[in-house]
Amino acid sequence: MTTTEDAKPLSSSAAAQSAFIGLAAYASLGAFSLLAHDAARSPDVATRLRLARMAAAELAEFDLAEELLRARGEDPIRMVSQYAGILDGFLKRAEPRDWWERLMRTYVGFNLLEDLVRDLCKSLPADLHEQLHGSVGVSGHADLIAELLLPEVEADPTLASRLALWGRRVVGEAISLAHRILAERPELVELLDGEDDPAARVRALVARLQANHSRRMGRLGLTS
Amino acid sequence: MTTTEDAKPLSSSAAAQSAFIGLAAYASLGAFSLLAHDAARSPDVATRLRLARMAAAELAEFDLAEELLRARGEDPIRMVSQYAGILDGFLKRAEPRDWWERLMRTYVGFNLLEDLVRDLCKSLPADLHEQLHGSVGVSGHADLIAELLLPEVEADPTLASRLALWGRRVVGEAISLAHRILAERPELVELLDGEDDPAARVRALVARLQANHSRRMGRLGLTS
Repeated sequence: MTTTEDAKPLSSSAAAQSAFIGLAAYASLGAFSLLAHDAARSPDVATRLRLARMAAAELAEFDLAEELLRARGEDPIRMVSQYAGILDGFLKRAEPRDWWERLMRTYVGFNLLEDLVRDLCKSLPADLHEQLHGSVGVSGHADLIAELLLPEVEADPTLASRLALWGRRVVGEAISLAHRILAERPELVELLDGEDDPAARVRALVARLQANHSRRMGRLGLTS
Repeated sequence: MTTTEDAKPLSSSAAAQSAFIGLAAYASLGAFSLLAHDAARSPDVATRLRLARMAAAELAEFDLAEELLRARGEDPIRMVSQYAGILDGFLKRAEPRDWWERLMRTYVGFNLLEDLVRDLCKSLPADLHEQLHGSVGVSGHADLIAELLLPEVEADPTLASRLALWGRRVVGEAISLAHRILAERPELVELLDGEDDPAARVRALVARLQANHSRRMGRLGLTS
């Protein structure tokens, strides 16, 4: 772990900043794939098109991160490749059995990844924060969930309890994913708020991620 | 079949034109899904990104077709939905065993679909032809094939003969796909060049599709 020994809040290093932008880029590319895959499995053309367009918007976010990395003298492909495969592990361990579980997996997994990115983004220098902050996220996806999933869950208690159970499994895998990302690039821990002890910072992060997840599940009337 | 009884070349009906634009839109959405899926299976981030960007470009082509359909008073979702599921059948019947077979499937399948669309496009009124002609195709994909697949095929005769065999299977499925599209919307046959007999027009189309396919396989040094 690249942390200092004193108790002052750490200012983020250039390496941590580049690792972060690489992560934001990787998250966008991962969101592209997941949303495109969900699009292909959509039950109707209208939903397919909405998801496909969200996927394309994620790719536009990638372009911004790529540009920022180039401006810092980094090789974007190399910076993104450092994370390659991490998301595949998550997807493999949380394989949905139907369309609703698929929608829920994206809802839980990518919102958690987005929360992680937003959390790390907070301690970036103001200019970098400004450039990246707006570009993080799966825009429109929460609305789609509210439109498609919420009425189903409200009408069908069996589905609701199955999806609540599934959400707990998915969030467990998503939190493992966050741990793997931080283990892969420990300099990212510099960007986390909190005490000097890196492990304590990670624990506090996980508590925040879990709390946000619970709020999101609550919005669907599901217990996390 | 909606064809006339006389031997003159047919001018295309508004219904045939709308069915065609719907097909062009469906082909773009299908290309988006296939390229996005190939992107997710890419062996490296650079290839993944190239394929993802090609996918996003296909979605931009969809937007144009959607706009043209709206301008004609058609519901784009309904026009596209008429083809829904046809491509899934092709993909299911030509399931690749590895990355090279996957690349080859996209190369064969989408070039054939593109040829079909270009062929039908020829007999559209000049303004519509102008608007749609440029927007058809999987741009950049042939270059990617030349870069990635050609060196492998040249260096590995076993792979070359396996992919030649695979190409024959894929083109068979792709031609079935073309037949299914024309069966689904028989007014599209109006748009085909040739004799009065619809079946003869379809046979001539298939011969053209097959000849283009053979040329493409030849470019990779493979016999079709």
